[in-house]
Order: sequence, then structure tokens, then C-alpha cells
Amino acid sequence: MIKRIDHLAIVVESIEGALGFWRDALGLPVTRTETNAREQVEIAFLPVGESEIELLEPTEADSGIGRHLAKRGAGMHHVCVEVDDIEAALARLTAHGVALINETPRVRDDGTRYAFVYPRSASGVLVELYEKPEAGQASI
Amino acid sequence: MIKRIDHLAIVVESIEGALGFWRDALGLPVTRTETNAREQVEIAFLPVGESEIELLEPTEADSGIGRHLAKRGAGMHHVCVEVDDIEAALARLTAHGVALINETPRVRDDGTRYAFVYPRSASGVLVELYEKPEAGQASI
Repeated sequence: MIKRIDHLAIVVESIEGALGFWRDALGLPVTRTETNAREQVEIAFLPVGESEIELLEPTEADSGIGRHLAKRGAGMHHVCVEVDDIEAALARLTAHGVALINETPRVRDDGTRYAFVYPRSASGVLVELYEKPEAGQASI
Repeated sequence: MIKRIDHLAIVVESIEGALGFWRDALGLPVTRTETNAREQVEIAFLPVGESEIELLEPTEADSGIGRHLAKRGAGMHHVCVEVDDIEAALARLTAHGVALINETPRVRDDGTRYAFVYPRSASGVLVELYEKPEAGQASI
């Protein structure tokens, strides 16, 4: 049901500054960067095995990530696990009394469906679930 | 050089309580638990793909993890990446001005060598490096 850690997201003040550690010193590649206008963040993707490190830099101070940075400083923000059936996973979580931020999956442009769990239900950790589109569907 | 995320460690007040989410609701298996007397923690290991979630419960309030829990509450504590050559990795980090908690690797009972990086050098993240013993050496 849970396939792997898809990504670990880290809030940073500056992607350029953070790459001095993650790329230059540690040696991880950066495969791409993108700006997520809805979340008001710039994201750098650094694969590690079957997972990725995502560096999140807020583009606006008054955004969710911007406020998180101001309040808590840089550091780990959330962990995302890939599931094979997100509806079944959310139903199982709900049956166990877990509080969901997204009770039904949201959908990204590439077809990935996702939902977040409230940290209060998950040992203080912001957990995201991902279900990737089946091969071939992403380009439809 | 960096092979994968070995584990993501999460500090919890109670492993038994935390398993209500990670095992029962999310569906991850628990393959083993162990008590680490030196670090004064009990650890539950939950594999996810090629990585593991580690739940850390302090056995003493006046321990590193116990103080972390009292100060910051439950949540993500550190991320560990496996490298193929920890000496080379630490040399590269040092050459880039990264501050190391362990300037030379420490060794666990199973032969795994590890070292931690100061969060101030790593976007506020406590990063651990692991080098596993070669196959066959662990049982020597």
C-alpha cells in the first residue's frame, strides 16, 4: 500500500544558498526547479535513490511557507509517501480517526493526486500522500 | 556517492501511541524495536521502500532526545543518507566549510559508520551520514 518515501521537503530561506550544502558539499544533483504559483514557492528537486529532497523557498513572505519560515526557521517541512490507492489510504486513515487536511484528494497538473494529514494526528509530522498517475496518463 | 535516504527519524512521546498512526492507520510494518542505551532511546523501525521511518522515544527525560521532545515537541528529528565512502564524504563536506558534529566517523555495533552534520550548515536540518559495512563483515 505504501510504496516509498516520494520526497522530503525542506523549507529554506534561499535555494541558491541551500545548494551550497545539498548540491555542492553533499553532492546531490539538481534535476529541475519550478515555481508553484498557487503555493507561492520555488522548488528545487534533488533525487536521492528512489526519493527526492525538495528545497522550498517562499516567493512571498505572506504565504504558508513564508509564514512557516518566519515562525520556525529553515528545516524539514513535510514528508510525502507514495501510495498505490489514495482513496483507500484516506478511507483507512479516517476509519482510524486520523484528521485529514484534504478529505478528498487534490490533483496536480501532472495528474498526481495528493492529500495532507494534520500533524496532530501524525506525531507532529506534516505527512503528504501521493498517488502518481498510471504510466501514459500523465501526458493526456 | 549518496545512495539513498536510509531513514527519517521522528521523535515521539510514546512509540505505542505513535504506532496508532504509522502502523495501524497508515499501514507500515514494524520489523523490529530496540533500546539504544547510549542514546537513551527506544527505537521502532518501519520500512518504507528502500528507506525506514524510525520512531524515537526517549527513555530518560534528561537525554538528548528527551530534551528535544520537551523543547520542540514531537516531530521530525533527523534524516540519514547512505553514502558509499564516509571518509570521502566528510572530507568533501569539510572542504566546503560544512560544520561536522562528528569529524571522524563513529561506529555502531553492527559495523555501520556514521557522522552528523550541524543543522546550521544544512538548512536547519540535522543530517546523518551512514556507511554500511560490506556484506559479510557485519557478522564478524
